[in-house]
Amino acid sequence: MINVLNPNKSDWKSLVKRPYFNNKSIVKTVSEVFKNVKKNGDASIKNYTFKFDKIKNDVIKVEKKIIFESESRISKDLKNAIDLAFKNIYKFHSSQVITKKKIQIQDGIHCWQEKRPINNVGFYIPGGTAPLFSTVLMLGIPSLIAKCSNKILCSPPNKNLEISPEILYACKVCGIKDVFMVGGAQAIAAMTFGTESIPKVDKIFGPGNQYVTEAKQYSMNFGISIDMPAGPSELLILADNSANPKYVAADLLSQAEHGIDSQVVLVSNSKNLIDQVSKELNIQKNSLSRLKIINKSLENSKSIFFKSIDDAIEFINEYAPEHYIINVENEEYCISNLSSAGSVFIGNYTPESAGDYASGTNHTLPTNGYAKQYSGVNTDSFFKTITFQKISKRGLNSISSAIQTMALSEGLDAHKQAVSIRTNDDEN
Amino acid sequence: MINVLNPNKSDWKSLVKRPYFNNKSIVKTVSEVFKNVKKNGDASIKNYTFKFDKIKNDVIKVEKKIIFESESRISKDLKNAIDLAFKNIYKFHSSQVITKKKIQIQDGIHCWQEKRPINNVGFYIPGGTAPLFSTVLMLGIPSLIAKCSNKILCSPPNKNLEISPEILYACKVCGIKDVFMVGGAQAIAAMTFGTESIPKVDKIFGPGNQYVTEAKQYSMNFGISIDMPAGPSELLILADNSANPKYVAADLLSQAEHGIDSQVVLVSNSKNLIDQVSKELNIQKNSLSRLKIINKSLENSKSIFFKSIDDAIEFINEYAPEHYIINVENEEYCISNLSSAGSVFIGNYTPESAGDYASGTNHTLPTNGYAKQYSGVNTDSFFKTITFQKISKRGLNSISSAIQTMALSEGLDAHKQAVSIRTNDDEN
Repeated sequence: MINVLNPNKSDWKSLVKRPYFNNKSIVKTVSEVFKNVKKNGDASIKNYTFKFDKIKNDVIKVEKKIIFESESRISKDLKNAIDLAFKNIYKFHSSQVITKKKIQIQDGIHCWQEKRPINNVGFYIPGGTAPLFSTVLMLGIPSLIAKCSNKILCSPPNKNLEISPEILYACKVCGIKDVFMVGGAQAIAAMTFGTESIPKVDKIFGPGNQYVTEAKQYSMNFGISIDMPAGPSELLILADNSANPKYVAADLLSQAEHGIDSQVVLVSNSKNLIDQVSKELNIQKNSLSRLKIINKSLENSKSIFFKSIDDAIEFINEYAPEHYIINVENEEYCISNLSSAGSVFIGNYTPESAGDYASGTNHTLPTNGYAKQYSGVNTDSFFKTITFQKISKRGLNSISSAIQTMALSEGLDAHKQAVSIRTNDDEN
Repeated sequence: MINVLNPNKSDWKSLVKRPYFNNKSIVKTVSEVFKNVKKNGDASIKNYTFKFDKIKNDVIKVEKKIIFESESRISKDLKNAIDLAFKNIYKFHSSQVITKKKIQIQDGIHCWQEKRPINNVGFYIPGGTAPLFSTVLMLGIPSLIAKCSNKILCSPPNKNLEISPEILYACKVCGIKDVFMVGGAQAIAAMTFGTESIPKVDKIFGPGNQYVTEAKQYSMNFGISIDMPAGPSELLILADNSANPKYVAADLLSQAEHGIDSQVVLVSNSKNLIDQVSKELNIQKNSLSRLKIINKSLENSKSIFFKSIDDAIEFINEYAPEHYIINVENEEYCISNLSSAGSVFIGNYTPESAGDYASGTNHTLPTNGYAKQYSGVNTDSFFKTITFQKISKRGLNSISSAIQTMALSEGLDAHKQAVSIRTNDDEN
């Protein structure tokens, strides 16, 4: 970890920068994949799976029976853990549903909003050694609550042309019935255009490697929307002397193990705490299986001492962390002065791991400073808001002169006429 | 207008297509503009304004005094109209603000969401003969309610290096103090990177020509978010025999006057109504100043007869209109079966013009079928949602085994350790 002492504001811009990765060659591959998948559908999916993943997937879709029976292939403990997480995530995401509020703007003018589900949604779940079934829950549960009618999921198969039973069981509990064994940019292209096997969707969610990330961004050129632009995961902890350095170190390590491009930042007004955390990091990390990754991502990481807590807060708002642990005496002050973060964890007993899995909140969050303008995935991510209005003749009369004056000032006389033809109509 | 009778479902895909425009040459210009503005800031803004608009803008920023005095340069009628519109739009958009709801997920586990304003927002308002001051209200009012701290606006100046007093007065009532005389892709590039005069923003809103639209899309490559992808404006009316053909025709014309690429669609289960509306169109259009535009956009437009109202509704959901007028006897049935639209106008006395200006709803809406997955601009467009959680030691104990089991199954033992180090700690 790099140690920074009371940095000047002029240095903040470089301090909030995330580790950079170049994606120029990726863009070219992705656009090629899109072209081919659009033209050749399933055939090109199979070709790419063979080319990139060395797997022959003659079958693309997972049989319903295999999803249904996935339960029997996972341990009882894991089933119980998933079921508990499901319950908590469902509870929190249900609470986000808003009820319709009809507003009387003036006598005879009523306006309101109604939510409707985005009908066709697609999820991408990375494969690899560790199956990210928790992300299936994070995307599947709010889509279940929003009642999205068509939910599909793509994930790369293993060498035996299988998707892990953990992922399939998470699909089952979330009512995701259409699961396809395809990964990478070709999966995103398939969901963008549709193929013989894989239906086209309107919005794509989920994490992935740099190819998937770029493909999601690229899909927007074809009328698809995406959950949010992605980047490597990150955690910032604000801690003072009231924090337990052992816990702080454990939280930093839990984030650092994600990948070599992950970033963890410790901000504190206590040099003593920074020292103690540093010592704890060196002790704790040695017992962890992903030590190599952790060492690499700690190189990208910083501990920053700020004399003034207000400077620290201002810096954190500029950084806009994906995950933000507030571990200080005066937590209320830090909460009310927070302007940008993805998900916030408060106090000594709220590790980021809790929100990653089972406390109820979502773990699909804006990285790379995007928390300045993006929200994490929540139930609203699966809805669109439609505006309604109903006006009576009397209501229209009361605003007709304003509408006509404004329309004429904008040079739009047909807009004026749509009002005057009604208000001047004596028949009614 | 093209007449279509009871189309087969196989034809729907082509029927919902919007008029197409090619933008390949535009992309090249836009990327060039971005490169130059990033490198040369204000100097390149001035160059482009001279090159594209033939205007020498030695001054880029509008003096505060000119904004303040704008009121005296518009008519009393227009001022009153804007003030009424402001009041109604403010009322509806205020009603959209959500209050915090703390959820107890389990004993000792509390989760909630809080909204925070997107601090730096930029608005683009097109210039031209008719100043679109109504759009200033539609973007400015919700940003005022959300308390966005930095709001800037760019709009191309006229030959006298001025922005119209209507636009400036709308800025004044919305508290937009930083107004810049620059249009086109160079304005979007300036808000993306910042220049000596124009501050960088995090999110860009507002309509524009094809260059502006492409530039907004392009800005997303540099970490900017935008209100929504744009396209030409459109209106679909569903009308039966209970509708007044005069009003229906007037509404179609009000949309058709926007531009030659606008599209209007009439859907009905009454051949008689379609005939009468067609006759009315031919009568009414002749008194309108924008007849040439109207004739051109009517060429892109369709009237579609459906024998069954259910087919009509299904087709409309597939079309996903930006503006949708429901003018039928059984309006409740149509509302509850609607899945995709931007803004809906119900009954004989709710012309689209009302929502364009003064009823209270927003007029910045998803076009081109994007209503399937995008919402129009609303107060929420100026907020991001942050998730918070606070867990007690007892709360953590109750979910610790689930978290640890899940973390291990995903191969993340540092995630497990962040929990176990707390729950195994006897000191506390």
